[in-house]
Amino acid sequence: MRFTSQTSSNGVTEQLFTLDETLGEIPGVLWTPEDAPGARPLILMGHGGGQHKKAPGILARAHQFVAEGGFAVAAIDAPNHGERPKSEEFGRIATEIRASVAAGEDAAALVVAMHDLGAGQAVAEWQAVLTAIQQLDHVGAGPVGYWGMSMGCGLGVPFVAAEPRVRAAVLGLLGATALAETATRITVPVRFLLQWDDERVPRAEGLALFDAFASAEKTLHANPGKHGDLPRFETDSSLRFFARHLG
Amino acid sequence: MRFTSQTSSNGVTEQLFTLDETLGEIPGVLWTPEDAPGARPLILMGHGGGQHKKAPGILARAHQFVAEGGFAVAAIDAPNHGERPKSEEFGRIATEIRASVAAGEDAAALVVAMHDLGAGQAVAEWQAVLTAIQQLDHVGAGPVGYWGMSMGCGLGVPFVAAEPRVRAAVLGLLGATALAETATRITVPVRFLLQWDDERVPRAEGLALFDAFASAEKTLHANPGKHGDLPRFETDSSLRFFARHLG
Repeated sequence: MRFTSQTSSNGVTEQLFTLDETLGEIPGVLWTPEDAPGARPLILMGHGGGQHKKAPGILARAHQFVAEGGFAVAAIDAPNHGERPKSEEFGRIATEIRASVAAGEDAAALVVAMHDLGAGQAVAEWQAVLTAIQQLDHVGAGPVGYWGMSMGCGLGVPFVAAEPRVRAAVLGLLGATALAETATRITVPVRFLLQWDDERVPRAEGLALFDAFASAEKTLHANPGKHGDLPRFETDSSLRFFARHLG
Repeated sequence: MRFTSQTSSNGVTEQLFTLDETLGEIPGVLWTPEDAPGARPLILMGHGGGQHKKAPGILARAHQFVAEGGFAVAAIDAPNHGERPKSEEFGRIATEIRASVAAGEDAAALVVAMHDLGAGQAVAEWQAVLTAIQQLDHVGAGPVGYWGMSMGCGLGVPFVAAEPRVRAAVLGLLGATALAETATRITVPVRFLLQWDDERVPRAEGLALFDAFASAEKTLHANPGKHGDLPRFETDSSLRFFARHLG
């Protein structure tokens, strides 16, 4: 793990890093409380499709989690996203999804295809990144949470199912297609966020994914609005959820 | 409004009262922070069917809301409940509901009939109680919230729809039957609690009631478990919801 830059603002230190894996370089970012040495719980954040490790929603949530909760937060560019090379197949599917959404058609199958392209690789990458970050003195091998919406949920479900170090997860904005069986292997506490008027994820599909988790503690939070309209107070609520389970 | 007793424990003062209305005496209870004069937001709590104003769930939530949130909390015995006389018709329906649940049958229609028995009267009673309580120096005419599950939701939906002084409501554990149209007249922020494996309220009915509220801000919280298994952390969450909207 090579750190390539370090800056601080409003009490939050941001370190950009690169992790060299056999599958290529993974560009990532780690946020921690400024001048606060020692171990702390870590939240891994998976960004949405078409976004990247420092997309506005990721950046804002990461800062809040660090500043208000004292967590460490890490994000990486998912395969085919951000600074990473895009495969031809990914480009083709992304174009089809945009056309499908613009035409008001159901893009669910295409979205699943896009997530499938990166899923296997993403699990291995998150595991490698987690191992590397837990060796840092200012993070340590404490409890780990995962937060990911939409594609961050699509890649997160297989990761959380496979990774015993993850003890709690906030997932959402995605349906059961291609994920329901994997979701039945998740037993840690889950918070699942659903947008009641999601134009990309049919309501019944979202409810079915919530239904599939095997977790004894799982809570569905549904709010009015479209795919991108997640209310701000759900971030406060996610922070308290992680504090309760990882604190 | 006549106060008949006053006790304090753990910083919470409990005052039993009776309000004389044309329809009869309404027995109630008011909880406020001990030795804390001045106005404060008020939460009205509607108990469930077969319960009463000091049922364990009401008492525990009221104490927490007062001690942690500084709220005033009031509860009254609903028509046919607690210290109030029971009508013959009410007794007949209650017996039928118990038999129906014991036989594993759908008691939804009977539950609706029970709520209908008390609904019109309950709205007028809550309004009279609210007016009386807001004249007290240690409560005042500040913002008002309503909390009610199951029958407390069945009587609460028409009350919240009719009463502009109520600015936020936590409702749940009930379905759309006979309530959906009234729910479309509710526009204040609503938190709606649904038990995913509710043996009394079909899941689709609960989702349909959440769907019916006209509120721009409404959030569904669904958790695994049966009608009586509402998780403890939802009380913490309700407290923060009221603090955000009434504080």
